[in-house]
Amino acid sequence: MKDLIRRKRDGGALSTEEIGQWIRGVADGSVPDYQSAALLMAITIRGMTRAETMALTEAMLRSGRTLDWSKLGRPTVDKHSTGGVGDKVSLALAPWIAACGAAVPMIAGRGLGHTGGTLDKLEAIPGFRVQIDPDAFRSQLEQIGVVIAGQSDDLAPADRELYALRDVTATVESVPLIVSSILSKKFASGASAVVFDVKCGGGAFMRSPEEARTLARELILTARELGRKARALLTDMEQPLGAAIGNASEAAEAFGVLRGEAPPDLTELTRELGAAMLVLCGVARERFEAAARIDRALESGEALRRAEALVQAQGGDPAVVTDPTRLPVGAVESLVLSQRSGYVTGIDARALGDLLVAMGGGRRRKGDSIDPAVGIRLLRKVGDRVETEEPVALIEAHQAAPEWADVAWKAYAIGDEAPAPRPLILEQVAE
Amino acid sequence: MKDLIRRKRDGGALSTEEIGQWIRGVADGSVPDYQSAALLMAITIRGMTRAETMALTEAMLRSGRTLDWSKLGRPTVDKHSTGGVGDKVSLALAPWIAACGAAVPMIAGRGLGHTGGTLDKLEAIPGFRVQIDPDAFRSQLEQIGVVIAGQSDDLAPADRELYALRDVTATVESVPLIVSSILSKKFASGASAVVFDVKCGGGAFMRSPEEARTLARELILTARELGRKARALLTDMEQPLGAAIGNASEAAEAFGVLRGEAPPDLTELTRELGAAMLVLCGVARERFEAAARIDRALESGEALRRAEALVQAQGGDPAVVTDPTRLPVGAVESLVLSQRSGYVTGIDARALGDLLVAMGGGRRRKGDSIDPAVGIRLLRKVGDRVETEEPVALIEAHQAAPEWADVAWKAYAIGDEAPAPRPLILEQVAE
Repeated sequence: MKDLIRRKRDGGALSTEEIGQWIRGVADGSVPDYQSAALLMAITIRGMTRAETMALTEAMLRSGRTLDWSKLGRPTVDKHSTGGVGDKVSLALAPWIAACGAAVPMIAGRGLGHTGGTLDKLEAIPGFRVQIDPDAFRSQLEQIGVVIAGQSDDLAPADRELYALRDVTATVESVPLIVSSILSKKFASGASAVVFDVKCGGGAFMRSPEEARTLARELILTARELGRKARALLTDMEQPLGAAIGNASEAAEAFGVLRGEAPPDLTELTRELGAAMLVLCGVARERFEAAARIDRALESGEALRRAEALVQAQGGDPAVVTDPTRLPVGAVESLVLSQRSGYVTGIDARALGDLLVAMGGGRRRKGDSIDPAVGIRLLRKVGDRVETEEPVALIEAHQAAPEWADVAWKAYAIGDEAPAPRPLILEQVAE
Repeated sequence: MKDLIRRKRDGGALSTEEIGQWIRGVADGSVPDYQSAALLMAITIRGMTRAETMALTEAMLRSGRTLDWSKLGRPTVDKHSTGGVGDKVSLALAPWIAACGAAVPMIAGRGLGHTGGTLDKLEAIPGFRVQIDPDAFRSQLEQIGVVIAGQSDDLAPADRELYALRDVTATVESVPLIVSSILSKKFASGASAVVFDVKCGGGAFMRSPEEARTLARELILTARELGRKARALLTDMEQPLGAAIGNASEAAEAFGVLRGEAPPDLTELTRELGAAMLVLCGVARERFEAAARIDRALESGEALRRAEALVQAQGGDPAVVTDPTRLPVGAVESLVLSQRSGYVTGIDARALGDLLVAMGGGRRRKGDSIDPAVGIRLLRKVGDRVETEEPVALIEAHQAAPEWADVAWKAYAIGDEAPAPRPLILEQVAE
């Protein structure tokens, strides 16, 4: 290990065999955390070649059990978002794509810090189970074509070890480490085609389009060299996605997409990601065919029925899909009033994500419990006109919370001029 | 800690207070090893400002007990070598300088890898104790002006923790970490004036004069800014120092210096370091006065008597100082014969240091026991003429060892031309 750490420290490259040794040592506990921490820091500063990133990905995905859906009889496809505020896309997208004829075996995560997590949003549905045993997973996937579950302990265990270590050693922000972590989990869970939603802006991990593009390209090229299909959309995270922030209200808003009642940005992004998924896995030949298929599944109500089947299969009340009032909601609303008139020129997504954490709706650290009922509802978004004393947002909590309303107000920037429209989909990245 | 690690990762500087927090956390165990390992790697790659190095040195020296010799009534002075092969200078130098009127409270170390350690050489003397309790240390220093002892556990404990971690995380080779480690130990043990012997060449830690000079300057300037006196000599480690390699034979050779019977390079270096020490601590005003004082202590036999007193005070047989046959020696000699005639153009110090480890005379890892009796005796050094089948060295072991003789032969380079003489003292560094 010392030789290996020293070589990376001095900017050299590690062989596939050396990376394999390291990761086997991480998995079996024979490489101590402090040596991995030193190597992770050297990698974060010195970088990795694509061959090293591939080797790391493969070593981590082979560190545990791997799933295989090749005998399922249907193409499988997955989506991965790099995380943002208000991103509830998966809850609508996964059943929608299943309704279009692909199978979506989705392994999702929990929220940490200002970004939310799909599992937490699903768990806002009373009774919903995210821990699914392997047999039940397969049988549900065969029956209804969609599962959204948490990562079981035996999938890519070395990645889980390293991720925990990166979190406490300031080595999270490394493109090769991010790429190998994402891909090893996705590939261990059997994904053969993945569309990446790489978020970009103040509420995202990647602040600039350049950073986001670099990550997207590395994800795609590394996935492809490992024999998988991949594409990416670079999407805006300068403001939150949709109008709801908070676990129960995000679940409600996501299902609203399938009823044609969601904010346009959320619906547009879900549709675009869905079209990319259908093309990537071969259900559609090109984007227009895919979009038509998606629209048909919505209009026929098949997408909605598939969402109900998903909720029912995993123990929740399927009526929440059509009746959002069955979801918990903070009964006390505090209005966030505009202190001036003008146009909304910005909404600080990160500040609102942090506010949700402060309200108890997110996690400061792993294992924190969260309150699904609290939330922030955006009544105005970027580009909207607002007059003095009109509400721009409201806080849903268990008591009146003027101080939270104040924080939410500070997240709004109001100007005299309407801002230039900013596209939601910044870029399609094919390679 | 995460913020701190992130800042250093990105090339920023840490404040004195932040470094203090880290080191307190290292000392009390509240900062986990993996966070220190990540930070050490970031420091190794990104470096540290002198202010950071000073802060780290002070934080580590204050992490435990500190000794204070200011009331001793005599100037104190110490010497520190960065480590090489055949470097037995301290055994002769410490009593010699005590005989000149300064007090030498020397905290010495053990060998690891290819470099030897003063404590191991002293322990080759039957009965010699290197663990001295604080009261005995002070009383011996008052009585005979010299102690050579191991570092007690309560001196700079944070440095000991970090050093152990650096050893296994490839973060040893960092100038600010080396400087703060050396200085914190020296200053915790009460040194107010230190002469550094910075070794340079293939058998040393620093391979090039540039690297050695950088380390020497940082040691001196950091020590000085912390209110201590310091100087450095850059000295050659392209070949081993003296003719003996091996713990007992090095002890014997060191005492030979005090009888006027040692190889000239060893005697010259010991004298030069001694002169620098006497000037630095104020016993002599300048180098010529210091050299005269040193020669007088040798000629009068006072240096030899002080060495005997040192050995006796620490439980050894003082007769070893004048009678080297009382020291253990491997009784079976294997000659290393030259396979050609010519001039010795190089002796690979590192290879011979590694050979001694292979013979059982050094340590692969901390805590290994060592055999003081095995050794390598150099019969020819760089610049010497040798004929085919003449011995260039001999192996002293417990059995015939032609394979070791073969390794030793490979450490010799023989050429047709006598090499240009290389000075032993490459440079005097005052700042």
